[in-house]
Amino acid sequence: MLKFYHAPWSRSSGTFWLLEELGVDYEIEHVDIRAEGGVPEDYRSIQPNKKVPAIEHDGIVVTERAAICTYLADAFPQAGLAPAIGDPSRGPYLTWLVYCDAVFDPAVAARAQGWEYRCSAFSFGSFEDMVANVEKQLSRNEYAIGDRFTAVDTQLASGIHYTLDVLKVFPDRPVFRDYLARMQDRPKFRSFMEKDQAMAMATPFFQKQFADDA
Amino acid sequence: MLKFYHAPWSRSSGTFWLLEELGVDYEIEHVDIRAEGGVPEDYRSIQPNKKVPAIEHDGIVVTERAAICTYLADAFPQAGLAPAIGDPSRGPYLTWLVYCDAVFDPAVAARAQGWEYRCSAFSFGSFEDMVANVEKQLSRNEYAIGDRFTAVDTQLASGIHYTLDVLKVFPDRPVFRDYLARMQDRPKFRSFMEKDQAMAMATPFFQKQFADDA
Repeated sequence: MLKFYHAPWSRSSGTFWLLEELGVDYEIEHVDIRAEGGVPEDYRSIQPNKKVPAIEHDGIVVTERAAICTYLADAFPQAGLAPAIGDPSRGPYLTWLVYCDAVFDPAVAARAQGWEYRCSAFSFGSFEDMVANVEKQLSRNEYAIGDRFTAVDTQLASGIHYTLDVLKVFPDRPVFRDYLARMQDRPKFRSFMEKDQAMAMATPFFQKQFADDA
Repeated sequence: MLKFYHAPWSRSSGTFWLLEELGVDYEIEHVDIRAEGGVPEDYRSIQPNKKVPAIEHDGIVVTERAAICTYLADAFPQAGLAPAIGDPSRGPYLTWLVYCDAVFDPAVAARAQGWEYRCSAFSFGSFEDMVANVEKQLSRNEYAIGDRFTAVDTQLASGIHYTLDVLKVFPDRPVFRDYLARMQDRPKFRSFMEKDQAMAMATPFFQKQFADDA
């Protein structure tokens, strides 16, 4: 049994896409992070910060996106989304999964908040270094870590999409647009996006937002 | 060939301890992050933020602490520091490795800097939630994820030690002190600490600091 704790249009969307790419059976538990009154306190027993995503597989809870990706892609190797232990790509694969959580995401959030900080105090370093690193990587590879699609792409492309098109803090350059276009052309990306949008439209928060915009 | 890029008394110290626990042969490349003029620019080809740690194993570079731990403990399974794929502890193991990088470290850094922030904007959430989660976990386990030592302990204990004894932002409670005492009593912890201290004492920065203090 595989359960996925998810909120539409959130940090868990990349995990949703990964589950579609894996082609496994799973059920979705909607955690309404935008509900009035907040997320119920009892969700903390699943995710200690009451955040998404989380998964529960055969009774075991896994949280933190890089951990969930590593776990799932290894648990379902037939999908071919992770280099196996011993494969020369395993190192870059793990590096980039953790990088998305520990560098990309907080560097973007700090930039969006307008924070100034001493880079030595924060593992994630500067926003500019992060962008330069992602640009260098995508300039020489069709996919995040080489010439084939892996679980990393679900995380990196989701992060770039959100920060470029929604937050609008990521620089709009052809290398990022081309990468997103390649990823968003995948059938499983489109099926995930349709399902995620349908979930969003069923939440009171987005129903009200779109009614107000109309 | 296994090379370890390290600066003493830094975020790479937990990786140093892990290497000692693994019992493998490795060589250390000292990256003097406190040198006047900073770290040479060519180090960026190894670590894009010019930070430590990084490792190079059979020509493959791995960065980000959780990725390095996952990689090394899987590459040297005879040390028994990682639950194998399929083991029920694999999920919590990966969760806590990523948690140390993506939640513990930035939550501590933000607290040390005195930052106020909207928790929804940052994956790492609040400092208080992080401390409560670590306390709950260590109250019911002898080691980070259960009843045996894993690579997670090198990361979690290093983080607690640094933030409790050096930064002094972590709350001083018996559950944390007891955990540190158990970890610091390990022979490999002591051998790592001696080597790390000797390296620190050989750097101009600490030589000057201790001369000034004398």
